[in-house]
Amino acid sequence: MNQTEFQAQMKEYACLTEEKLKELVPEQPQLTEAVLYQAMRYSLLAGGKRVRPVMLLAFCSLCGGNAQAAVPFACALEMVHTYSLIHDDLPCMDDDDLRRGRPSSHKAFGEANALLAGDALLTKAFEVATDEKQAAAVGSSRALQAASILAQAAGDHGMVAGQVLDLLNENKDIRVEELADIDAKKTGAMIRAAAHMGCALAGASQEQTDAADRYARALGLAFQIQDDILDVAGSTEALGKPTGSDAQNEKGTYVTLLGLTKARQVAADLTRQAEQALSVFGEQAEFLRMLADSLAARRH
Amino acid sequence: MNQTEFQAQMKEYACLTEEKLKELVPEQPQLTEAVLYQAMRYSLLAGGKRVRPVMLLAFCSLCGGNAQAAVPFACALEMVHTYSLIHDDLPCMDDDDLRRGRPSSHKAFGEANALLAGDALLTKAFEVATDEKQAAAVGSSRALQAASILAQAAGDHGMVAGQVLDLLNENKDIRVEELADIDAKKTGAMIRAAAHMGCALAGASQEQTDAADRYARALGLAFQIQDDILDVAGSTEALGKPTGSDAQNEKGTYVTLLGLTKARQVAADLTRQAEQALSVFGEQAEFLRMLADSLAARRH
Repeated sequence: MNQTEFQAQMKEYACLTEEKLKELVPEQPQLTEAVLYQAMRYSLLAGGKRVRPVMLLAFCSLCGGNAQAAVPFACALEMVHTYSLIHDDLPCMDDDDLRRGRPSSHKAFGEANALLAGDALLTKAFEVATDEKQAAAVGSSRALQAASILAQAAGDHGMVAGQVLDLLNENKDIRVEELADIDAKKTGAMIRAAAHMGCALAGASQEQTDAADRYARALGLAFQIQDDILDVAGSTEALGKPTGSDAQNEKGTYVTLLGLTKARQVAADLTRQAEQALSVFGEQAEFLRMLADSLAARRH
Repeated sequence: MNQTEFQAQMKEYACLTEEKLKELVPEQPQLTEAVLYQAMRYSLLAGGKRVRPVMLLAFCSLCGGNAQAAVPFACALEMVHTYSLIHDDLPCMDDDDLRRGRPSSHKAFGEANALLAGDALLTKAFEVATDEKQAAAVGSSRALQAASILAQAAGDHGMVAGQVLDLLNENKDIRVEELADIDAKKTGAMIRAAAHMGCALAGASQEQTDAADRYARALGLAFQIQDDILDVAGSTEALGKPTGSDAQNEKGTYVTLLGLTKARQVAADLTRQAEQALSVFGEQAEFLRMLADSLAARRH
């Protein structure tokens, strides 16, 4: 697979997700509560990279599943990711005014609408993942399993726990192991969910699922380290949010704890680990191998 | 069924829910993020009336289902209800300092923890409703259906839409039909979900489900009108929150729109309608008939 083919495949998965998201959360100008849908779409269709949906669809396809039937579940995953960004930006949380180069949701729609748009997206994710028609295409049991993986990754053992830990550690000295533990929950859980949901929807074997998990674990951490690197080494323009915001919030990051050079080296090692985990899939896994590479090389 | 038997049955359903909630959201003092579980339990185990779980279990039982196997789904419903109270009390929403006679969640734990406890409870609800073991007891298909009903009722066509409409109508003159429409979404949707989930988990017939829906629709509105009546006619002590808060927020209510006498009459008519809807179930529905009566007569 060359770069052009890789980019084409990326685009196909991302477009499938994009189109379905628009369909699942339509504009509703005729409704009095139209602002709710505006706020949901504002964040959901803000040009995110769709890394999690792409990974879900790629693993589903790699394990012999029907990627087309998995698209609604990829959308559910992206809805949960988007809700977490909206709530994370709120004044009582990180109080961020910018997200993806635009005013964050509460800046654009007010705090109450941002809170409710987040709540609605989280709920919609499970509406989509438990939908009767969606389920019929993959089977009730696999649909239920995918929805269950999503809920577990997003909840009190996963992403929400990570947020709580993150808040507890603000303005505190932190060791790199603690930081990795927080990130494993805060961002890693949802990236692993992408891999697990893809496998579950395809009815993958335990061996395949374990390999996918190793890939996603390594990639999730590499992704977070890369985020920290970009926060100091990137530009506001490319990132769509102010750089140096972590330092400003006095948050411990991989860069402050390890230094830029060592952080880059760890991220590169983890990316290699992720690629090695794919060996069980052979040639077929070339797309996911190139995905790991492209995330390691990303500029935003 | 006499009052003593009714009370015993109420207590049994409520206790089944209470015990399972404690098990599903245990204290986690060993975890760094222990505060998350404290905040979740603080609101979840605050002595709510458990009206929705009771209704779910009663309909499940009435339609020949296994109420014991439905308890986790009743808990999921109560978790969604509880999350909505926590987020509704936040400063950017109703900014309420008291809930059930105690400081509201954000007063007790701070805004960020309250937000996250709400997020965690909403997510946990779907973790419970899609759990593999839970599903095995009722069948994947029925479990998926129950989870789907819950998500639809809670989301952008249901409860969240109701919240948005409620905010849009603050400090505005409102007609009684508009108020009823908002309440049908804001509180009615979750009460109907209780009935529908109970029916779905029991594999009820369409006729049974339609009757349950008529019951829940009428009861949901009666319940809301009764809330408004208690807000002006109740006491802070019995209610656990300040009375007159609606008037203070300049919210249109059934009492301000219809007057106290007419509001009481409409609530009584709706309660009778709810009871009549149960006729298809015959004698067996005595408990749900008495439940409607007890809600109409409630003092808090």
